[in-house]
Amino acid sequence: MKYSEAFLNAAADLCEAGRFIDGKGWVPATSGNFSVRLPDGTIAITVSGKHKGRLQIEDIMLIDADANPLDDKKPSAETLLHTSLYKRFPAVNCVLHPHTIHSVLVSRIFKNEIALENYELLKAFKGIATHEARLVIPVFANDQDIPRLAAEVERYLDRRRDCYGYVIAGHGFYTWGDSVAETLRHLEALDYLFECELRLYGVNRA
Amino acid sequence: MKYSEAFLNAAADLCEAGRFIDGKGWVPATSGNFSVRLPDGTIAITVSGKHKGRLQIEDIMLIDADANPLDDKKPSAETLLHTSLYKRFPAVNCVLHPHTIHSVLVSRIFKNEIALENYELLKAFKGIATHEARLVIPVFANDQDIPRLAAEVERYLDRRRDCYGYVIAGHGFYTWGDSVAETLRHLEALDYLFECELRLYGVNRA
Amino acid sequence: MKYSEAFLNAAADLCEAGRFIDGKGWVPATSGNFSVRLPDGTIAITVSGKHKGRLQIEDIMLIDADANPLDDKKPSAETLLHTSLYKRFPAVNCVLHPHTIHSVLVSRIFKNEIALENYELLKAFKGIATHEARLVIPVFANDQDIPRLAAEVERYLDRRRDCYGYVIAGHGFYTWGDSVAETLRHLEALDYLFECELRLYGVNRA
Amino acid sequence: MKYSEAFLNAAADLCEAGRFIDGKGWVPATSGNFSVRLPDGTIAITVSGKHKGRLQIEDIMLIDADANPLDDKKPSAETLLHTSLYKRFPAVNCVLHPHTIHSVLVSRIFKNEIALENYELLKAFKGIATHEARLVIPVFANDQDIPRLAAEVERYLDRRRDCYGYVIAGHGFYTWGDSVAETLRHLEALDYLFECELRLYGVNRA
Repeated sequence: MKYSEAFLNAAADLCEAGRFIDGKGWVPATSGNFSVRLPDGTIAITVSGKHKGRLQIEDIMLIDADANPLDDKKPSAETLLHTSLYKRFPAVNCVLHPHTIHSVLVSRIFKNEIALENYELLKAFKGIATHEARLVIPVFANDQDIPRLAAEVERYLDRRRDCYGYVIAGHGFYTWGDSVAETLRHLEALDYLFECELRLYGVNRA
Repeated sequence: MKYSEAFLNAAADLCEAGRFIDGKGWVPATSGNFSVRLPDGTIAITVSGKHKGRLQIEDIMLIDADANPLDDKKPSAETLLHTSLYKRFPAVNCVLHPHTIHSVLVSRIFKNEIALENYELLKAFKGIATHEARLVIPVFANDQDIPRLAAEVERYLDRRRDCYGYVIAGHGFYTWGDSVAETLRHLEALDYLFECELRLYGVNRA
Repeated sequence: MKYSEAFLNAAADLCEAGRFIDGKGWVPATSGNFSVRLPDGTIAITVSGKHKGRLQIEDIMLIDADANPLDDKKPSAETLLHTSLYKRFPAVNCVLHPHTIHSVLVSRIFKNEIALENYELLKAFKGIATHEARLVIPVFANDQDIPRLAAEVERYLDRRRDCYGYVIAGHGFYTWGDSVAETLRHLEALDYLFECELRLYGVNRA
Repeated sequence: MKYSEAFLNAAADLCEAGRFIDGKGWVPATSGNFSVRLPDGTIAITVSGKHKGRLQIEDIMLIDADANPLDDKKPSAETLLHTSLYKRFPAVNCVLHPHTIHSVLVSRIFKNEIALENYELLKAFKGIATHEARLVIPVFANDQDIPRLAAEVERYLDRRRDCYGYVIAGHGFYTWGDSVAETLRHLEALDYLFECELRLYGVNRA
């Protein structure tokens, strides 16, 4: 297949993002998946089963807005969680899903949601201008039935459009933004804030 | 704009310092800001909103001693916290502000100040020659009103000139020195000592 | 000695795996050992006493299926633990043994076995398709008598063939797979899951 | 001054060791000092005040066995702790002194000594062949009077020659060996074992 220049640029960005994210230890083994929406509405997304720290251009595939493959590669099982976000949010052009250990641990401890308050780093999220904001990140039960999980996320987002990410229990988190750079910023900030909450919880319970 | 050689050298030093500081995980997302005072009294300072681990020369701008831009770039919201330190301390030529997780966590636990005692690494601070020193680092409440926050810092420094840095709660810390190298030394030492205090607190409370 | 191309490729893979594993801090000092089974049934394995993050081709030796050296290099004391796994599992072509600190710590805390449940990352193990699996990793007492330790491992594997790795108390763990890539995936996943269990234990006991 | 080839090789080894040790975060700010004994009994040692992760050949100086400078550079205040070890142990040719955070924290918790038992990694120490060994690392009170501190270390070593390192409280540790490689192995192993003891203490007290 002959890919467009837009696809190839997006694929290169995803490979580079993968090396950064893996360098932090956030996509162990072959976990995680990443995507970028192209100007024509198709989506460049990581294929199934590759190590995200060693991505090559050929590890990125093209799908349409309904998650149908437009080439002969095998999409990740969680592709529907990406397309669902793109359909809902017209301004979103990138979705990143790491398996950071902090997101797994907060999901075991805080159960339904993690409330983030009084952190300057909340300003890393687009549209938040003060540490006096309160950011709520929901935690969904893990589910191998991805359409069912996507539907549960949808129901939540119907009520809360001011959402920057969600955690799947024992699994990892999804975050999104208008570009790879903005989404990486959200990703870095969420992991940092999850680590803060986790360590304060440990200290406060001691 | 045509920049002086002194500016370009300072800018290169700040880019390199940024890569070092980001490599430690101390400026997640696009947090933090850094500056150097030039021999003519103007100041090279990071612009707003860039990732500090990937700084380019064009991400550094020039301001005067009163924080007025001398080029057409957009200064960080916290610029006044830099100029305020340069006005007070004639020997200071560099100010670094990271968002290390340890500084955020100690601010939640120790509230008003962190007292550092009996550490050999206290000797990393200019003018301290023994671990028997006692270094107090104040913690200020976070405030999006930077002139008001700067004024509070000023009032503290009026009483305590032997100060090497301060923490802003839930935010990060500021430290300074006569050169980039000395300020980096203070930065590394402070984060290390904050981590010591944090971990000892966790263990001792357990 | 003149080595085959298969040996040299395997040796290069082991050197690269060593740099990756050491970069994570999982083979401190000169600890750990790694091997690959070649198509003819002989085995490329790290020699005794080298730092695994700085392996050169000459630090890999050739042994037969019974652990007899086929060149004049000195095999690791634990070679028998490798050959024993190759004899039992015809599909296994790589064995990796790191000394991660998390595996040492879980062995001190969980004693006989570590049960891993409700983690998406369980899917990193070949043949596991859901986080609803339960993976049990046995812990064996450390023993400098390697034939005796190998025999104890054998007795366990006689009863539990669905095993992806084991921990030796205060020492490290062994894991295996059909290729270097699959074994590295198992290794990364196990260390991550050990860290999860360890941190949750600390928080829950607090 | 014209240095010998032996000096220049030792200096290069110390620069490289410094980059490795700093990469682990074990010599924050400009802390730590390192030395190698040359075949003629003179000693190559790091000068005072340099960052150990960015050492250049010119940051290494030459001293005699009594710590007198043989060039015009300024030795570290702790030089006497190096020469004292070389005088006592004829087989020792390298001394490394990092300020690892784990060594600082164990000194606050375990006070007089740290006993290391039942770790496979004990075999990283020259002459220990089994995890059933018991390695005792003494902790000395910090003291800016280096001759007095050296004398206290001497008194301890008079009674316990089977010693691989010692901790100075709130400061860091010293370790030694017959070569840079062996000493680095001891250093990596000690920090790893200190971290084990520290984390187990935290968990067990919780």
